[in-house]
Amino acid sequence: MTDRAPGGMPPGEFREWGHRMVDWVAGYLEDVERYPVLAAVEPGQVSAGLAVEAPVRGEPMESIFEDFRSVVLPGITHWNHPGFQAYFAVSGSGPGILGEFLTAALNVNAMVWKASPAATELEQVTLDWLRGFLGLPPGFAGTINDTASISTFHALAAARERGLPEARVRGLSEAPPGRVYATPETHSSILKAVHALGLGRDGARAVATGAGRGMDPAALERAIRDDIAAGRRPLAVVATIGTTSVTAVDPVGEIADVAAEHGLWLHVDAAYAGPAAALPRMRSHFRGWEWADSIVLNPHKWLFTPIDCSVLYVQDPGALHAAFSLTPAYLETGEEGVRHNMDLGLALGRRFRALKLWMVMRYFGQDGLRAILGHHLGLARLLAGLVDAAADWERWRPSPFSLVVLRHSPPGASASERDTANLGIMNRVNAGGTAFLSHTEIDGEVWLRCAIGNIHTMEQHVRATWAALQEAAGRVRLRQPAN
Amino acid sequence: MTDRAPGGMPPGEFREWGHRMVDWVAGYLEDVERYPVLAAVEPGQVSAGLAVEAPVRGEPMESIFEDFRSVVLPGITHWNHPGFQAYFAVSGSGPGILGEFLTAALNVNAMVWKASPAATELEQVTLDWLRGFLGLPPGFAGTINDTASISTFHALAAARERGLPEARVRGLSEAPPGRVYATPETHSSILKAVHALGLGRDGARAVATGAGRGMDPAALERAIRDDIAAGRRPLAVVATIGTTSVTAVDPVGEIADVAAEHGLWLHVDAAYAGPAAALPRMRSHFRGWEWADSIVLNPHKWLFTPIDCSVLYVQDPGALHAAFSLTPAYLETGEEGVRHNMDLGLALGRRFRALKLWMVMRYFGQDGLRAILGHHLGLARLLAGLVDAAADWERWRPSPFSLVVLRHSPPGASASERDTANLGIMNRVNAGGTAFLSHTEIDGEVWLRCAIGNIHTMEQHVRATWAALQEAAGRVRLRQPAN
Repeated sequence: MTDRAPGGMPPGEFREWGHRMVDWVAGYLEDVERYPVLAAVEPGQVSAGLAVEAPVRGEPMESIFEDFRSVVLPGITHWNHPGFQAYFAVSGSGPGILGEFLTAALNVNAMVWKASPAATELEQVTLDWLRGFLGLPPGFAGTINDTASISTFHALAAARERGLPEARVRGLSEAPPGRVYATPETHSSILKAVHALGLGRDGARAVATGAGRGMDPAALERAIRDDIAAGRRPLAVVATIGTTSVTAVDPVGEIADVAAEHGLWLHVDAAYAGPAAALPRMRSHFRGWEWADSIVLNPHKWLFTPIDCSVLYVQDPGALHAAFSLTPAYLETGEEGVRHNMDLGLALGRRFRALKLWMVMRYFGQDGLRAILGHHLGLARLLAGLVDAAADWERWRPSPFSLVVLRHSPPGASASERDTANLGIMNRVNAGGTAFLSHTEIDGEVWLRCAIGNIHTMEQHVRATWAALQEAAGRVRLRQPAN
Repeated sequence: MTDRAPGGMPPGEFREWGHRMVDWVAGYLEDVERYPVLAAVEPGQVSAGLAVEAPVRGEPMESIFEDFRSVVLPGITHWNHPGFQAYFAVSGSGPGILGEFLTAALNVNAMVWKASPAATELEQVTLDWLRGFLGLPPGFAGTINDTASISTFHALAAARERGLPEARVRGLSEAPPGRVYATPETHSSILKAVHALGLGRDGARAVATGAGRGMDPAALERAIRDDIAAGRRPLAVVATIGTTSVTAVDPVGEIADVAAEHGLWLHVDAAYAGPAAALPRMRSHFRGWEWADSIVLNPHKWLFTPIDCSVLYVQDPGALHAAFSLTPAYLETGEEGVRHNMDLGLALGRRFRALKLWMVMRYFGQDGLRAILGHHLGLARLLAGLVDAAADWERWRPSPFSLVVLRHSPPGASASERDTANLGIMNRVNAGGTAFLSHTEIDGEVWLRCAIGNIHTMEQHVRATWAALQEAAGRVRLRQPAN
């Protein structure tokens, strides 16, 4: 128990513990495979290891760090583990982690330009770098939000502002019902955003998909005409490049034509797959995204930048400004011609999130980033090849990026037997500690998702996942589900 | 120029640069007063020092760090500087910075429980600790968002869901116009949230204030009755404890009575002042906040936790769940009785933001945190006393927390002369490099804000700010404004 004086942690103590933690983190990252990927704790186990109340007197860092290792760490699912393949990779990298450390130390809140000019300007410069890396034209201006959900919410808020300007003052209650179009494959954050914006569940209309689960532009066209005839106000269409479930690609170019004809906002969700646009051979999947009004992609997914770093690009920052700008006197700063982050979104406060991305892009360089992305695509092809060559396994296609969707499919099994078997296989693999997979449903049937993209994943890890799947399949007997 | 192999930064390089950055950060924090508080750069100056495109090949950390120091750092406004008194203190502390470093290294995304059980459970435990520290009853459940703006948005989304349930499916377009009540002193994020929720500018109704700029409960009552008679649907009232402009306190207890009578959601904005509730002698300002449906307070403001850490407490987590829950198949995890953070808000992804707060609360302990808060209140009283004792200066009252609102007020000056003089004084002080202040307007007149609460601020810094103000006042000649 220690008395703490105003002024905070003494410099010597900070230095000592900083060095100890650097050593711990370096060892952790170097040897993350010693941990099971998926935390092997029961609900409530972590809580039970912690005190019920905050300590009355300060505690030594030694005790805090000891509890971090003995209580917190066993409850961590290791997103850094090369066998973490359940969700789209969210693996940081050395320069990104060090960038976060500097961000925490500087601790600026870049709500207005003068509150830290470098935070505002470095964000603009770095997002221009990223834009160029991705082959997007100069018209796009970027901002960083914490998550793609929030970025998408901002894009659709701007779309609502443009499509229903009468709601700005009077609200939606006297406006025609607005509509946002997306396929059933679209990420759940789109429905959340539409609901949050006051458009209700009816505010999102599901557009049918064609082969490969991409949006059918003709169905979009029909839906829009139908809604206009019914007195609804079409606002936006969300096209996804790389859906979460199976990495389907909506035909953005054709969708853009329909959107343009009817004056709809086109939002492209490339939260996961976006970085692949940096590879010339993958560019065809992104055809037409340069016509979008807004694009979201997450460097904290497949660009080795620690969470959170979601980039929203918009063609017309004025649209975000119209939706969110509102300046109180105590934030009037007098600077003309500079960007104030607070005018571009719901949040007033802004972490200096660009610093880590800037460090990642400089450390790896464009070629280095392309090499890692290409490596991951190669690993996915490797796994796809193993699945395709195996009896009693099948693979969902197309899956053009680094997600492999597969299932065990023994001959003669009914659909429900197959579903049960695959969930059993997944649970067995996940309990094994060397790989962590997730599942999805396609046409009501279970498939397993193996998401490659972790910066630490190498060929042996993909082969280990495949071995674990086969081993589990051999042990999970086919049986009828309980009901 | 370096070739980067897949796998990321080699462990030895991470270790080397981690140690170098710890030394740099320790030195920076120890000697932050060597920098001017407010960045002395022109708009565009930081950008001009950076390359136009991302490097093609990777660069050595040495070059990156060199540019951080020579290009980025001069553009940083130093929120750590003890003379930073412009906005409510957002000063981190040693244990908080180290907590952020561990968070970045673990890099978990706690969207569902199993994605890192410890991240979900540590958040619940730590926010229970904080709740107890603040004297709030056990009924409140907490979640962490990035900013108070986002927390408030969530609270008002839950209020809309409760007050306009018919909008859940059909949207607001056939619902009666909803209304949220707040005073003109309320933070701009409330208006932003109301607008984002589809309620329009008319969705917020300004309620008159009484003495000290607190909300007049009788005026609230009249406004609600008036709106009901006009066919509007009252949804929520926002009461603030410590407004941004002058730290006014709305009478929460009386407002709670009115809200309860009409079934309104009561949201309490204590984003800045909340931590003061931990001091028994300050508890009177918080009377009635235990009746709120939701409360926001920011440990990243006055609780020495690096940005971003905004806590939203709600009495009924089911209300957030109703507004935001929506689970796609690939996120169905099967666990019963555990919390999934994604169900409690717009964002699917979640940084492990609780770790730093847990480390701060353990390191300082409840007594240590109370000592620092008490120290800051004492510094504010010291400055208030200096202002009150000085000829030609006046102070806005009441200001019960750690913000001092003051102005130079020489006899015989007109209101516009006084405004011009005070803006001149502020600009002169800010350009001096030892203090950074902001201004606000009260009844259209300029006042200066001196916000104490930085963990590094000691008596000599407050005296230095006061000396700088007096010096500036002596040099800024009264003159008519240009128009």
